[in-house]
Amino acid sequence: MDDFLQAAIEEAKKGVAEGGIPIGSVLVIDGRIVGSGHNRRVQQGSAVLHAEMDCLESAGRIKASDYRRATLYSTLSPCDMCSGAVLLYGIPKVVVGENRTFCGPQAYLRSRGVEVVIVDNQECRELMESFIQNNPALWNEDIGE
Amino acid sequence: MDDFLQAAIEEAKKGVAEGGIPIGSVLVIDGRIVGSGHNRRVQQGSAVLHAEMDCLESAGRIKASDYRRATLYSTLSPCDMCSGAVLLYGIPKVVVGENRTFCGPQAYLRSRGVEVVIVDNQECRELMESFIQNNPALWNEDIGE
Repeated sequence: MDDFLQAAIEEAKKGVAEGGIPIGSVLVIDGRIVGSGHNRRVQQGSAVLHAEMDCLESAGRIKASDYRRATLYSTLSPCDMCSGAVLLYGIPKVVVGENRTFCGPQAYLRSRGVEVVIVDNQECRELMESFIQNNPALWNEDIGE
Repeated sequence: MDDFLQAAIEEAKKGVAEGGIPIGSVLVIDGRIVGSGHNRRVQQGSAVLHAEMDCLESAGRIKASDYRRATLYSTLSPCDMCSGAVLLYGIPKVVVGENRTFCGPQAYLRSRGVEVVIVDNQECRELMESFIQNNPALWNEDIGE
């Protein structure tokens, strides 16, 4: 498997170990991980630090020209907010671990010129299936439902 | 003028006083401000804390049914990321101070059922015009250009 998706899965597992929501993300530029993060709703009481946002925040202030060469990896299909962050920064490619347990606006991302690759990784699916089954209210909160 | 837009402008001015980008936001539920914030790019080196995101973060973890009665005020038209956050949480109404210095995806927001009200407030415009004139590189960074 792609080492970068594996790194995102490791981030998701960090979230699990902290009692959080098992979604992880890394940002890659020129073959190097420049940011990584995981969902912080439980750990920090955060309404905005989805894994992808935590990852972008960890990468810090990056030049527009660098975002334009970046790929964002996430274990789960990015929601409206995280997809919007991809559009804000002109990140051209998103690699998604799985989109069966939740599917964000990937058609809209594609219509705006973003390449969206769906891996359909079993480990990503199992992390989410187990989490949703055991924590349905927390999961609904995270996706605004 | 609307007291809530005035509160968002006060947030923008806090940002100016801190040497930051002059954009402010408040979240209102049932006639009460439940969150407020301003852009934190300069102050915290943040890539994700636009005013609206900072405001949502300050409001904390809110029930979906409460977001559904909320109005988000921003001194400036929300970008793709902040508009995405509005969609994630199903916030039904956004009041925008001005959209002349920057215009986010308001047609897309409306197509997804969000009411978008443009006030075209002179003070909001002047804050941004002065800032952009004096800090063009910082402004471009904030909008991913």
